Amino acid sequence: MKAIVIHAAKDLRIEEREAETPGPGQLSVKLATGGICGSDLHYFNHGGFGAIRLKEPMILGHEVAGHITKLGEGVQGFRVGQLVGISPSRPCGTCKYCREGMMNQCLNMRFYGSAMPFPHIQGAFREHLVVDASQCVAADGLSAGEAAMAEPLAVTLHATRRAGDMLGKSVLVTGCGPIGILSILAARRAGADLVVATDLSDYTLAMAKKAGADVTLNMAESAQALDAYKPDKGTFDVLYECSGAQVALTGAIPAMRPGATILQLGLGGDMTLPMMQITAKELVLKGSFRFHPEYATAISLMQKKLIDVKPLISETVALQDAQKGFELANDRSRAMKVQIAFA
Amino acid sequence: MKAIVIHAAKDLRIEEREAETPGPGQLSVKLATGGICGSDLHYFNHGGFGAIRLKEPMILGHEVAGHITKLGEGVQGFRVGQLVGISPSRPCGTCKYCREGMMNQCLNMRFYGSAMPFPHIQGAFREHLVVDASQCVAADGLSAGEAAMAEPLAVTLHATRRAGDMLGKSVLVTGCGPIGILSILAARRAGADLVVATDLSDYTLAMAKKAGADVTLNMAESAQALDAYKPDKGTFDVLYECSGAQVALTGAIPAMRPGATILQLGLGGDMTLPMMQITAKELVLKGSFRFHPEYATAISLMQKKLIDVKPLISETVALQDAQKGFELANDRSRAMKVQIAFA
Amino acid sequence: MKAIVIHAAKDLRIEEREAETPGPGQLSVKLATGGICGSDLHYFNHGGFGAIRLKEPMILGHEVAGHITKLGEGVQGFRVGQLVGISPSRPCGTCKYCREGMMNQCLNMRFYGSAMPFPHIQGAFREHLVVDASQCVAADGLSAGEAAMAEPLAVTLHATRRAGDMLGKSVLVTGCGPIGILSILAARRAGADLVVATDLSDYTLAMAKKAGADVTLNMAESAQALDAYKPDKGTFDVLYECSGAQVALTGAIPAMRPGATILQLGLGGDMTLPMMQITAKELVLKGSFRFHPEYATAISLMQKKLIDVKPLISETVALQDAQKGFELANDRSRAMKVQIAFA
Amino acid sequence: MKAIVIHAAKDLRIEEREAETPGPGQLSVKLATGGICGSDLHYFNHGGFGAIRLKEPMILGHEVAGHITKLGEGVQGFRVGQLVGISPSRPCGTCKYCREGMMNQCLNMRFYGSAMPFPHIQGAFREHLVVDASQCVAADGLSAGEAAMAEPLAVTLHATRRAGDMLGKSVLVTGCGPIGILSILAARRAGADLVVATDLSDYTLAMAKKAGADVTLNMAESAQALDAYKPDKGTFDVLYECSGAQVALTGAIPAMRPGATILQLGLGGDMTLPMMQITAKELVLKGSFRFHPEYATAISLMQKKLIDVKPLISETVALQDAQKGFELANDRSRAMKVQIAFA
Repeated sequence: MKAIVIHAAKDLRIEEREAETPGPGQLSVKLATGGICGSDLHYFNHGGFGAIRLKEPMILGHEVAGHITKLGEGVQGFRVGQLVGISPSRPCGTCKYCREGMMNQCLNMRFYGSAMPFPHIQGAFREHLVVDASQCVAADGLSAGEAAMAEPLAVTLHATRRAGDMLGKSVLVTGCGPIGILSILAARRAGADLVVATDLSDYTLAMAKKAGADVTLNMAESAQALDAYKPDKGTFDVLYECSGAQVALTGAIPAMRPGATILQLGLGGDMTLPMMQITAKELVLKGSFRFHPEYATAISLMQKKLIDVKPLISETVALQDAQKGFELANDRSRAMKVQIAFA
Repeated sequence: MKAIVIHAAKDLRIEEREAETPGPGQLSVKLATGGICGSDLHYFNHGGFGAIRLKEPMILGHEVAGHITKLGEGVQGFRVGQLVGISPSRPCGTCKYCREGMMNQCLNMRFYGSAMPFPHIQGAFREHLVVDASQCVAADGLSAGEAAMAEPLAVTLHATRRAGDMLGKSVLVTGCGPIGILSILAARRAGADLVVATDLSDYTLAMAKKAGADVTLNMAESAQALDAYKPDKGTFDVLYECSGAQVALTGAIPAMRPGATILQLGLGGDMTLPMMQITAKELVLKGSFRFHPEYATAISLMQKKLIDVKPLISETVALQDAQKGFELANDRSRAMKVQIAFA
Repeated sequence: MKAIVIHAAKDLRIEEREAETPGPGQLSVKLATGGICGSDLHYFNHGGFGAIRLKEPMILGHEVAGHITKLGEGVQGFRVGQLVGISPSRPCGTCKYCREGMMNQCLNMRFYGSAMPFPHIQGAFREHLVVDASQCVAADGLSAGEAAMAEPLAVTLHATRRAGDMLGKSVLVTGCGPIGILSILAARRAGADLVVATDLSDYTLAMAKKAGADVTLNMAESAQALDAYKPDKGTFDVLYECSGAQVALTGAIPAMRPGATILQLGLGGDMTLPMMQITAKELVLKGSFRFHPEYATAISLMQKKLIDVKPLISETVALQDAQKGFELANDRSRAMKVQIAFA
Repeated sequence: MKAIVIHAAKDLRIEEREAETPGPGQLSVKLATGGICGSDLHYFNHGGFGAIRLKEPMILGHEVAGHITKLGEGVQGFRVGQLVGISPSRPCGTCKYCREGMMNQCLNMRFYGSAMPFPHIQGAFREHLVVDASQCVAADGLSAGEAAMAEPLAVTLHATRRAGDMLGKSVLVTGCGPIGILSILAARRAGADLVVATDLSDYTLAMAKKAGADVTLNMAESAQALDAYKPDKGTFDVLYECSGAQVALTGAIPAMRPGATILQLGLGGDMTLPMMQITAKELVLKGSFRFHPEYATAISLMQKKLIDVKPLISETVALQDAQKGFELANDRSRAMKVQIAFA
């Protein structure tokens, strides 16, 4: 079978790999769709991010969905041919964090397509995938493309839950790539009232509007765009920082009301923060990392048509055009989520 | 001007009252619509509820909206002719609970149409009402009937916020009168996943379905209807108990999962509860009482079409037919929210 | 070896049982001390409580400590001769609640001395006990009597954590048996400011005073004793209801301030509650059940002399006098915690 | 009367000021003791901190206690001669944050000795002070020096409450000046289990030990001192960062367990933070600013001997030696809290 393998920055290859056989409690899935994530792009563009570097070839990909081809021994509740979303989150279930219900902090996590441990955790961009039944969520009624969106949607649902009760809150989203747009959808779904979104691209801001933002602001046009929200110590209860850019975070802080929550979602390196403002306004900066139970919630909310991710899928390329897909995904002026069709 | 006055159980009269003049910071409003609430019905049917009894004639009503006819001195941000929702919540702003932000617990609350203190707090069912500007929320874009629904909607938004993060939660609603249906809308808006509703009437359950319940169960048909949700210590994370019936609450407890939250919204007297189950499953029973900031949120979410209350307004009667309206509101087999048109 | 076995109400026997051999990951412990708990007393007095009834002979006991006599294969971090507190909490580690970190809600819990499943879970009142290393907490520096108190102390630490931040709070404790007194110690340790305790016995109230209560009130002398705390909708932020008596709970509710938390710790049957007050003051009634991580915390806080349970141990009887010990434990006018010396 | 006035960095003068007369609801207090705070030192050493600069002469001081000399009209609950702690927190009571119970975020706060607005808010280091009765807390049974410590103690109680439930938690305190030592006392009082403290001075670390730290680490001796707490993603649930030094914060992050809370208390400028670690471990960085209701709690807990601040008061100088007192307070190798005796 074919797999999409990154060897080094800009060195992406489609290679042959041996297909696996499902053991007890496992399934074989014929991959239908895989979405290109920001971290995939980091490996493609830079061979890693921060201190994390590629040390051996690695199959990319962790936003995937496909159809079941075979049920391993003892698997129940699924049927051959069924579309499933496949969670890339594979915690050990026995370490101390798993025992406390913090699966996303598992000490032995094997998250698809991660270069953090060595040997690397190989990813899911391959034509056939053997998975644990516990990774699969039945996605009847969804398209494969939607099902593959469950992964990034789960990231924003997890962040939203970390922000606590969202009903009636005022929300700012900085950075309107896929995670930013999904944050808008998640915040809306959780009951946010005012939603303001900022970015530097009119293309992504138009999508933010369509996703439900009340106000969109192009910061490239005016650095003062947020000024209207700063009087009386600020307006917003929650910030989803999805750009990874220090200037977005520090620029938003004067518009956050006292006690507000800042969710840091954007991948970035070190940031210099105005600690005096954070202290004096008693802001709460919360890291948010991946997800676990929220994956099934993502599928369910899409099935019930309570969240619609279809407008985000801006282009789907064939497997043999994967490289083109990655290049397209790099262009925020005309691509939101780019997916690869495996079948 | 005319006002709807309750003198004793079943003794409802339309009487003349003197219209007031707005002072500084106040507005005159020509009432457009008033909704009949469960507590209005208690006064109408029984002359009170629990230990609270009518001791003098009282104008009923607290779910009201109307058009501004005059601005008192210093009032800004409103204009004559504008539709406003009028919050019946009038806290003093200076007692210790107001100072802690718990406005709904104000020691000197003057909530429209309450027989609790004596002299009673006269209600809002009158053709002209003088109100504080702080009670008014501009309702441009809504119908007067929708604006009048902001009050009961705010009750359920407040309860929902007391339940905390709702995203992806499993919710049970027992009792599908107006508060039950609005609870479904509120839970959905706040991100609930599974929503199950129970009642004894097919009419209200049909409305629950329309409001977004995934499953509706008529408990009159089978007392075992919730059994499917009881295995493994239960299913639901949150219960909105909106019936005020002890059997509804105790019947739901075996279907609540460990640590679940029970919101008691239904007006009822003493209840006998299975404390052993509550203790052993570590359930959390939370009282929820009225609202305060949620009133403005209710208007805003309706304006943004994020919550649609129109299907609940089952009948609107003219002022002179108020008595008929109260009788209709008593009939859960064919009426949900009954409103009175004042103009 | 000898074990303390309940056959039926008032039929307590000291019987011979076969000692077990430790498997991998297990320890053999020679029991030093066992405390008699309220649930042991229920079996002794009534043969069960509520719907839970004895159906076969059961070894009692779950508040135990002893000295290690043998280490099973692979056990590390312990040494022969060492004093350990033994947690009676034995969750399966794999059910859905264990996976969420809610060990005390384990679907397959094997808590010592519980008649709830059949066959019953045999208890720990036996001369030699084989335990999992994960149940043991080294208790160096403590007496065996103190170490055995870790269990009921953990119950109150768990309840205290469920109440949330306790610093500076006003606390009421109703019922000053061992759980009530330990609740006073736990609330104090967690930073409570005002602590008021009620009971019907001067003996237990004297102990409450010694444990740190600011005020003690004998409700047998005056049913109005709490009146001073009722003005302005009430005083207390937290109630530890440790009596299991309905009158204690309902009598306390008017003294609870709006939004207060009620922790139900006392074992009791159904209770009739004033739902109108609970709703109107937005009280929060929280069940609290057993504990899990708090067991190790209990040992540690005693070792650091941050909680002193020694004054509660009112009498220690020899194994052969177990029956006398149970009878003594029934008498709240002169006994607090009664322990049995096994060696 | 005399007052301690800062004119510019190192230009501290004792000057004459006119004494005021108490109006209705006010009290006259003859100051007994005033403690020198870190912010007083910043004005003394640098003429301000961060963007905040002295623009006119300002009376320093906000940690004060004294004896009542006169009661204004209508003041009840106090008596002439009584010792009172005086809270420097004077919120307006009517702005939107006051109305939400966030007094410490008051838009019109007049906190003693603050150069932030202009004209500056004059401080409390003067022989006679007229205060609102609502600022005063009776301090019977305390020394004036202890009562003056209520202010910095309240800062750490507020921070502790922001950390949420502390019972059984593992705590790290970086920086053992007065705020660090009081944080240890506050964390202990709130039920912390493991408490580790770091600093660069053996003098302050000895005091940390006396205050209840289990372990003290001199980071000047070994930058690896925290390594033992880093395995398995870290140990501590809560960090009180009291040094204001970036290296203390970034050095502590690898020792914080996933989901841990970082309380930033130290006054400092911008800081460069490892956002990847914060995100991946889902750390929660919370600003904590001053206090409000915690002032009365601080007095009460000291009165009940539940917190003992006396060991922190390392030196008391006479009013005429104020300059010497400020210089002494600068020396962390031999002074903790320096107080000025006004009478």
